[in-house]
This record gives sequence, C-alpha cells and structure tokens, in this order.
Amino acid sequence: MTFSLTGQSIIGFGRTQNTEPVFFGVNAANGEHFEPAYRAATSEDLERAIGLAIACFPDYRELGRRRRAEFLRAIAERIEAIGDPLVERVMQETALPEARVRGERARTCGQLRFFAGIVEEGSWVDARVDTADPSRQPPKPDVRSMQRPLGPVAVFCASNFPLAFSVAGGDTASALAAGNPVVVNAHFAHPGTAEYCGLAIRDAAERTGMPEGVFSLLFGIGFELGQKLVANEGIRAVGFTGSQRGGTALWKIAQERAEPIPFYAEMSSVNPVFVLPGALAERGPQIAAALHGSVTLGVGQFCTNPGLVLLPHNAEADRFAGDVAQRLRETKPAVMLNAGILQNYGRLVGARTEDSRVRSLVEWGPEAHAARPALFETEAATLLANPQLAEEVFGPSTMLVRYVDGVQAVEIAHRMEGNLTASIHSGPGDEDSVRELVAALETKVGRIIFNGFPTGLEVCEAMVHGGPWPATSDGRSTSVGGRAIDRFARPVCYQDAPQHLLPEELRDGNPAGVMRMVNGERTR
Amino acid sequence: MTFSLTGQSIIGFGRTQNTEPVFFGVNAANGEHFEPAYRAATSEDLERAIGLAIACFPDYRELGRRRRAEFLRAIAERIEAIGDPLVERVMQETALPEARVRGERARTCGQLRFFAGIVEEGSWVDARVDTADPSRQPPKPDVRSMQRPLGPVAVFCASNFPLAFSVAGGDTASALAAGNPVVVNAHFAHPGTAEYCGLAIRDAAERTGMPEGVFSLLFGIGFELGQKLVANEGIRAVGFTGSQRGGTALWKIAQERAEPIPFYAEMSSVNPVFVLPGALAERGPQIAAALHGSVTLGVGQFCTNPGLVLLPHNAEADRFAGDVAQRLRETKPAVMLNAGILQNYGRLVGARTEDSRVRSLVEWGPEAHAARPALFETEAATLLANPQLAEEVFGPSTMLVRYVDGVQAVEIAHRMEGNLTASIHSGPGDEDSVRELVAALETKVGRIIFNGFPTGLEVCEAMVHGGPWPATSDGRSTSVGGRAIDRFARPVCYQDAPQHLLPEELRDGNPAGVMRMVNGERTR
Repeated sequence: MTFSLTGQSIIGFGRTQNTEPVFFGVNAANGEHFEPAYRAATSEDLERAIGLAIACFPDYRELGRRRRAEFLRAIAERIEAIGDPLVERVMQETALPEARVRGERARTCGQLRFFAGIVEEGSWVDARVDTADPSRQPPKPDVRSMQRPLGPVAVFCASNFPLAFSVAGGDTASALAAGNPVVVNAHFAHPGTAEYCGLAIRDAAERTGMPEGVFSLLFGIGFELGQKLVANEGIRAVGFTGSQRGGTALWKIAQERAEPIPFYAEMSSVNPVFVLPGALAERGPQIAAALHGSVTLGVGQFCTNPGLVLLPHNAEADRFAGDVAQRLRETKPAVMLNAGILQNYGRLVGARTEDSRVRSLVEWGPEAHAARPALFETEAATLLANPQLAEEVFGPSTMLVRYVDGVQAVEIAHRMEGNLTASIHSGPGDEDSVRELVAALETKVGRIIFNGFPTGLEVCEAMVHGGPWPATSDGRSTSVGGRAIDRFARPVCYQDAPQHLLPEELRDGNPAGVMRMVNGERTR
Repeated sequence: MTFSLTGQSIIGFGRTQNTEPVFFGVNAANGEHFEPAYRAATSEDLERAIGLAIACFPDYRELGRRRRAEFLRAIAERIEAIGDPLVERVMQETALPEARVRGERARTCGQLRFFAGIVEEGSWVDARVDTADPSRQPPKPDVRSMQRPLGPVAVFCASNFPLAFSVAGGDTASALAAGNPVVVNAHFAHPGTAEYCGLAIRDAAERTGMPEGVFSLLFGIGFELGQKLVANEGIRAVGFTGSQRGGTALWKIAQERAEPIPFYAEMSSVNPVFVLPGALAERGPQIAAALHGSVTLGVGQFCTNPGLVLLPHNAEADRFAGDVAQRLRETKPAVMLNAGILQNYGRLVGARTEDSRVRSLVEWGPEAHAARPALFETEAATLLANPQLAEEVFGPSTMLVRYVDGVQAVEIAHRMEGNLTASIHSGPGDEDSVRELVAALETKVGRIIFNGFPTGLEVCEAMVHGGPWPATSDGRSTSVGGRAIDRFARPVCYQDAPQHLLPEELRDGNPAGVMRMVNGERTR
C-alpha cells in the first residue's frame, strides 16, 4: 500500500485546487523542512467539505451498523497497510521514538476496531420502547426513542498524539461510529502524518462504498481556519484536544453561534498525585521510581502527566524528594514534539525557577533543541494561597507540594480545579485520609487511580478521560473509552410511528438484536 | 396533613429570618391578592441554602438507592396528603381548572415515583467494569466507572406547570434521584403552590432522615435572585423551564462563570404540524377537530402547543382552514396563568393581526382578563423569506402555512429552527413525503409524532422532551422521561480501587444487582 503525499487538503473523494505552498513539516530535532509543501485550505475548500458532509449525512446515518463497522475496520487496515513510511514520517515530524510510534499506531487501529465493535454490539444507542395501551384513559401512545447522530462533526487534532488523537484518532473514530460525517482540521506540526491518515480514511471510504463527504481533511496554520470551521452552521459538534487557551477560544465561538453546539475540548490537567505517609513508609523508593517514569514518559508530553505531587512533611518524604530529584538529574534532555512546545516549556519552567515561592530541586537551564527535566517544591499553604502555581507545565516537570497533615491534603483536593485524573498512594494507617480524599476527588476529576500513575491510559469500555472544567469543556463526557461515542448523538423519539419508518433498533421483535429497555425492563 | 403558609423561603429545615413583605400570589381572573405576603430571599438566605447543599452532598450521595427512592416516594405522599388546600391554591393562583390541577398533581406524584423506580432499578448509572489482566504486557489495570451526581442543582420553576415543572416537578425529582441536593427558585406567579410543595419536600426529608440542605426553596421576584443562584460557584448544574429570553440570559451566566456548568433550559417551540394531502383527503375534519383541541388545551399554555400547521394548497385544505377557524371562533376566551402572560399573548397576536404578510382567519381583539383564540394564515414562501414569522406565541393561537408541494413542505422542515416536537399527518399517497420529512425532522426536533398532536406528553422511559436550540439549550438532553436523570450526573472512573472504596454498583459480584457492562458484555 503506497500513498503519495501531495500537501493538499482532502475534500470528500477529491483534493483542493489551491496550489500555493504555505508551510512544511519540520524536524523538531534540527529544524529541517520535509517535503511536500502544504497548502492552506481556502474558504471554498471549507464550504465544500462541509457541504459534502451535510449532503451525505442522511445516507451515511442510514447505512446500518454493519456497514459503518466495516468502514471503521477498513480505516484501521489501510493505516496498517501504509507500513513503515507512516512510522518514519511520524518519527520525523514529532521526534517520538519508534517504539512509541508503533505503540500509538496499534492504539489508533485498536480504537477504530473498538468503536466498530461498539457499533455492532449496538446497546450504546440506548433504544427504549414503551408500547401503546389504547384502553387506558387517556389512551397511552406508542413511544420509542434512541440515540441518533448529530450531523457533521469538526475534529481538531492533538500535537502530542499524532495518530491516536489526530486525523484517524479517537474523536474521528467515535464521531464516525455514531453516524456523523467528519471534517478534520489537521495539526500544522505533523502534516505528513495527517495526510497519510487522511488518505487511508479516504481510501477506506471509497473501498467500502461510503458516500462522498463522510470525511474531509483540511490543512492550515493559525487560528482562522479553525474559527471558521466552528462558526459554520453546518457543523453540529466539535471534538478538540489541545491547550486551554485554544480550546477556550474555540469553545466561545461555539457558544456564540446563533445556534450553540456541543463542544468537547480536552484541555488542561495537572493530575495531582497524593502520596500518603503509610505509602511512603511502606514503599517510598518504588513510588519515587514510578513517579520518575511517569513524569518523563514521552518527554512528559501527556495530558495525564503528573504535575503536582502531594507529600507529607517527614524524613521519608525528604528522602523521596531527594530520590526523585536524583533520578531527574540523571535523565538526559530529550527532543520535544515541536519548537513551540519546547519554547513554552522553557518559558514556564524558567518562570517557576525564578519564583521565590517555589524551590528548584534540580538545576535547570534551557537547551536549544531538547527539554531538560525539572523538579520544584513548595508548601501546601503556599499553593492554597497561590492557586495559579498549579498551572499546567506541559513537559517533563513536576512540583512536590508538602502538606502538614491529612486535613491539609484533603483541603487541597477540595480546592483544586477540575482535572482529568487524581492518584492516591496509600499504606497502613492511611485509611481515613483515603476515604476523605476519594469523597473530595469524586467531584473534581474523571478518574481516580489507586496506588498507580495516570499515564498509560487503557482504552476500554469503562475508561473515563474527562473531568470538570478546565480539564475539559464538558465534564459529562469522555474522549477515551466506550462512552466517547455518546458525545456525538442525541435522543430522538418516535411516537406512534409505523414500523417501516423506525430505525431497526426500535422495531418490534428487536431485529437488530440489541439490548433495549422495553416497558421499563432491560432486555435483548 | 396541614401545612400553614407563612411566605418565607425554606432554607434546609429552617426558614428565612427576613420578614419584609414584598409580593403576593395573585388571582389571574380578577387581580385579587392572596395571603400570605411573600418575602424575597436575601443574599444570606441564598448563601446559606447553597452552603447547606454543599455540606450535605457527600452524605446525600452515599445514602444508597433505597433511601433515595424512599425520600422521593415520601415527597409524593406528602403532596397528596395536603389534599384539597393544594388543589384550591393552584386553581386560585393559576386559573387552571380543577380537573387539570388534579391531573397535574397526579402526574407530579407519578414522576416522583417514576424516578424512585429508576433509582431502585439502577441501570441508569451505566456501571462498567473492565477487570485487570496482570499477565498482559503492559499489565492491564482494573477499570470501573459509573454515573455519579454533580452536586447542588438549581431549579427554576415553570409558570405553566405549577406542580409538574415547579418545586417538586421533573427537574427536582430527577436531580434528587441522581443524588444531588436541590435549591429551587420559586416562580413568583404561584408562591402559595410553591410553598406547599416546598413544605411537603421538607417534611419528607425530615421524616426519611435526609441530611439538612438536600432541599431549599427561595422566593423572589425579578431576575436578581436567579442570576446570583446561577453564578454561585457552589451550584453545579441548572434546570430551567421558561421563556427563550429568560433561559438564554441565565444560560449565558452559566457559560461565563470561571467554571461553566451544565445548563438545561427548555425554552421555546412552535411544534410544527405537517398535514399531507392524503391525510386531508382521508380524514380532514377529524384532524381539524383534533388540532382545535390541541391548540386550545389549557388555554394554549403548553410548550408543546402546535403553533405552525403546514397545509397544501387545495380545496380540502381550504375547508380544513375554515373548519378550524369556525371552531376557534366558537371557543370562549379563557383566563391565562397570569397577567404578564396574557399581556404578552395580546402583544404578539395583536402584532400578527396587523402584519400584512399574514391573514387573520378569526376576528380578534384583546380582552381584559382572558385570551381569545387566534388563527392566522400565510404562504410557505412568505415564511421561508421571513422566518421570524414562526416565533412562538404562547397561548391559544396557531398559524396555517400553505405549501405548494411536498418539496416546499420538506424545505420548511429543513430550514426551521430546533423544536421540541414535529407532527406528521399522512394518508394514501403521502409515503414519499413522509420519508423525506422524517429524515429532515430527525435533525430538528426531539420527538416526531405520527398522526397525532404533541400536547398530552406521556411520562415514560422512552419519552424525549428536548430538541436542538432554541427549543432547549442542550439538545442532547430531555426534561421528561427516564433519561432526564442523566442530566445531573457525569461518569467517574476508579482504577485499581479497593473493593470497599467502590460504590456498591461497581463491586465484584454485583451486590446491587444492577444491569452492568462487564468486560464489554451487558449483564446483571
């Protein structure tokens, strides 16, 4: 399987006609440009992509569960079929190591197949049937309802997951699975990777007989393309992974439309880790080693990176801090995803280094092309008085926060902003603190991890990768796991509908064979 | 069971100390004031109500399903136990007839018991368990998740459902059922009704041992109290039923908070009714009679009132129009819920009467204390060119819109705003139009009714009372039916959690006996 990169946006089954070169993929390690030159999508490209998406929506949503699952699986096959050229391109454009890229490709294809399975299994549509009772006074109507797709979905790609949260990533997979056409805004930092995946989706769509417009891919730099995409009245929902600033700006556009639309942004998280005294006494060195691994994994470029570590004030915690510092000192600087991310990391760590409210535990200085790990320390009282100190630093850095007692640790949990995750390490004697922490964290995060770290996200039915603002713009949603498909659907109800006008999942006798709720009973 | 009305806000188990009288319940038919005088809740009352709600939330959410169901059932019992004084007060304050009030009381108590059943059945929490596999590389963690309550919910009452969508109405019932404390902003137009229901809830909370703060009821007039309530950071979600102007203003406050929160407003809907030629030919007179009944039911004061009726251009449609006009002419003016609603009805109908783009089919003039039904007619092309003509007129008025062919009828469906409902009346020969209408309406409304009318909403698991903006502020939600409980919860995930720290629904062996998804399989 070979695809040739041309640098053009993909509009339905065709390509843009715009030929003016604008930007290139860039080697993060040395600034070298990669061919081809990428053209920015024009307003006409955007209108045409959305127009095709609107036009194909009725056909696409009626194709049936098996055809949609077939399409998703074909995308995974086409991505795998590209083979090494894709892996090499990702490595060149993102500086991610080969094992990580191969792992992320496996996760990406796994996600596509995971959602294919969810579509086939069918219970996600929450089909409900309440049958009529004409003898009741007043007569009881026949009422049936299920989740139905929203319409064209815009997807904004993440720089830190060039495969798993980009063109063919989780947002695209779940939106397509729910029955929506997708228009992707590629990330400028990995355009070749984006084009490979876009070509794989286009090829899969053609081979499996999908209607044109079910997928388009738009290239651009700057904010204008994305702003136009979110503001366009043909777009019915948005999936976004990126910074709080970018996410909030686009979220506002979505809210200020004549008709506001659901906007799912996964934005910012410091993922606090609470290390309790009993855990430190029992296995401090092991936790320190695992923390070091989690902070530096993928050069710290995960939204689940643990950016805040709550520690008691005792000798074991001092040893723990020294241990983590020593490990971070011995960690070599590593190339980040792109120059902008490195620059931002340097700016935030530099500012923290000079902040008198915080102690630097590792000597730190900026590097030209790589990020040196950083470790800071402060008091819980200082953090409570200066909550902005908890701001996310995207990269291999974390801050130890020393609490005087369990009450103060719980207070931190109560007063922190929304996060994707929180972790609790506990041991003998920590039982009361754990209970209080869980009660506080349940209202603050999407996932609570016990005696582990938040990096290494499992893709499974039960996973929640979401959380209250500002972790996400919609804390009722998750961008990973089975429930991600729910974001792109809404319930539609049919009252006294003739059988042939009902979706298969709602018909008498359950020909679709899905789990349903019939007159209040869950049944298949 | 006797409760005495005192005119004071209910703050937890206590009452406000504010004694300055501000407003009265008013007899809509003659402007007479009812005792007692109502005091506006102060900022301190609001802070105290929210403070109690925050403080009791951890206890309330952990009470368990059976206790919560018991509380909901006790509320229904207490409301019923008030007996005739409640019915009389509602009739006095709203001018609704006795049968309607008794029916609405039955629906209100039915809703409370309906959500009690949902809480006990338990599958709404969408419990998911993915068990660990330590032998996998990397080891697979144990991941479990379920819907958990959000925290204190603010509820804004509807003037047109003084029982079923007010203090103890659907929003309160579903929010309490999900495990959230509730702070209600009473509607100024039926304060005595509100206080009776508030006292019933307080009494039920005390008798069933609920923690103080699970419910508070605040009285006020004007927007200030509501604005403060939505802006307060202790409030975690809002349910609202009312006007588009009021709903949009409060929705904006919710979006502009430092931490935006879910805001569910049910606002505005004209509920288009498509009458196709085959249906007219087959049973025009019956449809006309039923339309008249639906337009005038409850003096047209339903959010499901059919405000737009699409009709072909033929002799049967002319007869249909004449028939409906005659029936409306013969309908006596009736007292509306309050003077403000009557005034607004008069203003909108009056403006439409003088609008040259619209024909009046029934002679109309304003009345001092009652609303006279109104009927208008225009061309589909006129409506398409002037979409503001479809603006909701709250009251016993509707507009016939004449389409030249099925293509134009479908175009209306494609171009209309979001609505709660749409209805299709069809007969022999209408098959193609119906299919196209359904495809268009699926993206525009929450409920499609076949050969019927939208009034007379069935409360059942499958019901959807929602729809895209501006019908509601969140088209993924419904304020009636089983799914209403989902609005006030979000998924929380527990990774590698000890059994004793998990909610009962997620524990090994399923001690709660709820339907769950275990390793991808729906099972009990």
